[in-house]
Amino acid sequence: MDTNRLEAFSDGVIAIIITIMVLELKVPHGSGLADLQPLIPVFLSYVLSFIYVGIYWNNHHHLLHTLSHVTGGLLWANLHLLFWLSLIPFTTGWMGENHFSSVPLALYGFVLLMCAFAWWVLQARIVATQGRRSTLALAVGRDLKGKISPVLYLAGIVSAFLNGYLSEAFYVLAALMWLVPDRRLEKATHER
Amino acid sequence: MDTNRLEAFSDGVIAIIITIMVLELKVPHGSGLADLQPLIPVFLSYVLSFIYVGIYWNNHHHLLHTLSHVTGGLLWANLHLLFWLSLIPFTTGWMGENHFSSVPLALYGFVLLMCAFAWWVLQARIVATQGRRSTLALAVGRDLKGKISPVLYLAGIVSAFLNGYLSEAFYVLAALMWLVPDRRLEKATHER
Amino acid sequence: MDTNRLEAFSDGVIAIIITIMVLELKVPHGSGLADLQPLIPVFLSYVLSFIYVGIYWNNHHHLLHTLSHVTGGLLWANLHLLFWLSLIPFTTGWMGENHFSSVPLALYGFVLLMCAFAWWVLQARIVATQGRRSTLALAVGRDLKGKISPVLYLAGIVSAFLNGYLSEAFYVLAALMWLVPDRRLEKATHER
Amino acid sequence: MDTNRLEAFSDGVIAIIITIMVLELKVPHGSGLADLQPLIPVFLSYVLSFIYVGIYWNNHHHLLHTLSHVTGGLLWANLHLLFWLSLIPFTTGWMGENHFSSVPLALYGFVLLMCAFAWWVLQARIVATQGRRSTLALAVGRDLKGKISPVLYLAGIVSAFLNGYLSEAFYVLAALMWLVPDRRLEKATHER
Repeated sequence: MDTNRLEAFSDGVIAIIITIMVLELKVPHGSGLADLQPLIPVFLSYVLSFIYVGIYWNNHHHLLHTLSHVTGGLLWANLHLLFWLSLIPFTTGWMGENHFSSVPLALYGFVLLMCAFAWWVLQARIVATQGRRSTLALAVGRDLKGKISPVLYLAGIVSAFLNGYLSEAFYVLAALMWLVPDRRLEKATHER
Repeated sequence: MDTNRLEAFSDGVIAIIITIMVLELKVPHGSGLADLQPLIPVFLSYVLSFIYVGIYWNNHHHLLHTLSHVTGGLLWANLHLLFWLSLIPFTTGWMGENHFSSVPLALYGFVLLMCAFAWWVLQARIVATQGRRSTLALAVGRDLKGKISPVLYLAGIVSAFLNGYLSEAFYVLAALMWLVPDRRLEKATHER
Repeated sequence: MDTNRLEAFSDGVIAIIITIMVLELKVPHGSGLADLQPLIPVFLSYVLSFIYVGIYWNNHHHLLHTLSHVTGGLLWANLHLLFWLSLIPFTTGWMGENHFSSVPLALYGFVLLMCAFAWWVLQARIVATQGRRSTLALAVGRDLKGKISPVLYLAGIVSAFLNGYLSEAFYVLAALMWLVPDRRLEKATHER
Repeated sequence: MDTNRLEAFSDGVIAIIITIMVLELKVPHGSGLADLQPLIPVFLSYVLSFIYVGIYWNNHHHLLHTLSHVTGGLLWANLHLLFWLSLIPFTTGWMGENHFSSVPLALYGFVLLMCAFAWWVLQARIVATQGRRSTLALAVGRDLKGKISPVLYLAGIVSAFLNGYLSEAFYVLAALMWLVPDRRLEKATHER
């Protein structure tokens, strides 16, 4: 069994997730510039989540390239990741509509944390099926970003109850860290 | 005519079904933890349906792998399955919004039953085009899960009018039974 | 330039059209069987449109199989077809919500008529690029169904203002006629 | 790393964008012809945006055909383009619902301008990875349409505050200009 259909299905789900988020940006009734103002936080949270989903798509792209065949367990590990990603439009909308108040900010971080956890499970399963000495295993060996980002999400969740701006700063920081493409995997797949 | 486009189209429809279900999880107006409480049943029914649609995608993936060419009848048997699957977001939303009361629970089970029926028709047609001695025919010969699940759905529908929790238990049980990947098909396609 | 991406994009759009139609089936607030009753016409029009979009997908599948390369004009003829198909969810929803009253019924038929026209344009362009003696040209030579269906749609539009049931009967009849797979094309592509 | 998955993902997102725009065409409650009248501007703006998204899909199709491999930077340049395209349903809906009043008209043009900018960035990156003497570099050398269209969008934005019809005329003109397929690229990819 090849990885094509797994990629195609994941692409489909991620493409829909990234696009339905924009539906939270509801068309205002008035036609003035002032009618756009309440949409600014919704727009900003859309931008942030677009980048996060883009990062996951990008890294997913690299991760599956190291994969030669698919098992039932991998299909479910992948669906588990897609499940948590599918909640991002909800948390994005809630955070945007409530001008970044504490509980929505914390929930946003919690879903990011669960996505990171699901990613880690998927990555671990792929390493398990391919052996500890595979290119992927070596590549993710010192997965620094993978270790830092959950800490940043946790910091964002805790600080959501102290200072909203601080919390946002942690989420933006984690996104910026990931925006730099994953050289380890890119290099590893290139070497194959 | 090859099976690629049939797979791609089915993947597209299933990916959209699994993702638009999350739209039932409507962003609440308040920003407190209490505002999330009414969403808990909606969330739980989303989780259950996500697993069901995931199961169908997973098994569909295996089923089509046993197929070498597509006929007009197969295209329609497949569309028939997609039709019933497309009703899952509706029954999921209704069940979730009504805190698992009887009629929505029964309708949820009815649509699952029709999906199982449509699956059985599709499987039978594939066996018919490939001959009674094909790998698929032998693999599904003693299709135990395929025979138990309609019974569980029926039990869920009947018990919906007696005890909501019992009804849900049947639906969860059927999902758990299917979560175990279909070894028969996986083995059969592997042996080819 | 190959036809793969044209197929993939068309599949994507058609998959979304067929799936967002179900969003018109809005979750009712009550939880009784009576709350489902107003949804019956919406459901029936969903079934009819699901079949129509399924027919177009099915025939589109056959049509593109006769195509060896794509030109700019073909891309736009295909987008033109997708445009009219994309209006089906709207006309389906309007027809369903108004219990099949005259103007919505007529508009439903008008969009079907435009889809048939767009199909005819696409088919003509493909024949033009492949020559009058191509398999497709010979296959569609006596395109009986393609000539009958616009007449049925027109009959449906006119009778919408006389008798709603008669109008619906014409649309159902046209769908039934197309449900039979297009043997001419299926045969033609098979012979290649 | 090949370009297939980049194409597939872009196709998915563009297919969803083009299709969710139709959701702004909300089913009216009444069933008369008069109930359709307020939808006319929404419909017209849908037609215009459908053509714009179609143009981008069409040209994207040609652009990626000149590409042999994908880098991390290209993935993000492509996501950047998809981001701005994803805002078109919002600006289309706002413009349609407000009968083409000035701020919505200007915002519509602004998003088109940003799409053009994102396209230019993507094109420049592809030329950069493939060298100044590549077929693409030579083909886009005198990119006349690419230079005229931002001027037309700017003219549309400015005139939105003077005369709505003039502004619309600029957007329609730019679309018509692009409707003619990009012979330069089509020729260049053909010659390869």
